Amino acid sequence: MEEPRMTRTIAIIGGTGKEGKGLAFRWARFGHRVIIGSRQEAKAQAAAEEVNRLLGTSGQSVVGMANERAAQTGEIVVLTVPYAAHREMCEFIKPFVQGKIVIDVTVPLVPPKVTRVQMPPDGSATMEAQRILGENVQVVAAFQNISYEHLLHDEPIECDVLVCGGNKEAREVVLGLVKDAGLVGWNAGPTENAVVVEGLTSILIGLNKQFGVQSAGIRITGVPRPD
Amino acid sequence: MEEPRMTRTIAIIGGTGKEGKGLAFRWARFGHRVIIGSRQEAKAQAAAEEVNRLLGTSGQSVVGMANERAAQTGEIVVLTVPYAAHREMCEFIKPFVQGKIVIDVTVPLVPPKVTRVQMPPDGSATMEAQRILGENVQVVAAFQNISYEHLLHDEPIECDVLVCGGNKEAREVVLGLVKDAGLVGWNAGPTENAVVVEGLTSILIGLNKQFGVQSAGIRITGVPRPD
Repeated sequence: MEEPRMTRTIAIIGGTGKEGKGLAFRWARFGHRVIIGSRQEAKAQAAAEEVNRLLGTSGQSVVGMANERAAQTGEIVVLTVPYAAHREMCEFIKPFVQGKIVIDVTVPLVPPKVTRVQMPPDGSATMEAQRILGENVQVVAAFQNISYEHLLHDEPIECDVLVCGGNKEAREVVLGLVKDAGLVGWNAGPTENAVVVEGLTSILIGLNKQFGVQSAGIRITGVPRPD
Repeated sequence: MEEPRMTRTIAIIGGTGKEGKGLAFRWARFGHRVIIGSRQEAKAQAAAEEVNRLLGTSGQSVVGMANERAAQTGEIVVLTVPYAAHREMCEFIKPFVQGKIVIDVTVPLVPPKVTRVQMPPDGSATMEAQRILGENVQVVAAFQNISYEHLLHDEPIECDVLVCGGNKEAREVVLGLVKDAGLVGWNAGPTENAVVVEGLTSILIGLNKQFGVQSAGIRITGVPRPD
């Protein structure tokens, strides 16, 4: 018997892109209260309506808010912004996320060479977020390696989620949310390990290019799988 | 129909450990000429004899040499030294490997926190080797994520090999050697990506500790597998 899972209020900042809508869909369907945040409230509401149409009558309705109110309202705040907006957005949400878990989905790609790992001076986007947000925020890296094409369409995703950063308790909460999204997650250790998880995305993009697909992923082997 | 594979002379520097003997066993069985190198010639010869006993009559016989002569003789030179000896060994082999491919298997673990990714100032062991050996050497990172327990015993290994660094031609040669060792390899891009491949080892060690096993690995999904 599994114990019943807690439902939570999750704010997805910059959530009008594929990643944000895909995660919103999966979490709302599970029963979490999901807020999509955007710079423009109207854009956030349009994205929320799009997700609600896909949800039909299943799960919770998703709502759209301006980023500021979304970050204030969420118990857990998820960052899905392009890397170019990452630092600014961390500074913007800082006052609203103190004491919370922030899930950083950002991959610091440097166009045009997106298949080459190029980390920012802090070592990774996750470590940059942790430095800016301060020690009262648990920044946890997750979901960087997922092909978002499949998230919104409820297709099976053959890619595991490596979860690192924050303290162990914060990672456990995020591992629960990975499971609620229908994915398999693994505790990948401390925040210094985020360079691997973020950088792996460049290797997967390289494999996608080599094979002309959009589905390259990774799977952890050799340990008991929860699925 | 596959085309017949070239046989090569491969020198494994610091090859008396588990990694070195495991790779020697697999490559010699395929038909490559393998030299195990060690600081002490007698130790190298003892390791070679150990591998030859396991090989029985299959494949080529492995020979042992002092590191210097091994590095001179090998067409392809493989570095399997503990990270503490990495820089010194790169400087030592430098004159003998000009114009060659060097496969760097080193993971820059920093005991006691081996589950935390901690890269050297060059960014990775591979980039350190490339800087020291110079531009006439193609340094290719590979085999860092394999559980060496299984290599020597000819057990199936459920872990793929990410190959990065050097130029594309050098990576292709190394991908061939991965296949000859009975493993599945992937072109993981330029030398900057080695931080991911080396760092992944810390994440896998962490998973091994969490589950009390020695077999955690990764598998690439979502692209056509060669096996």
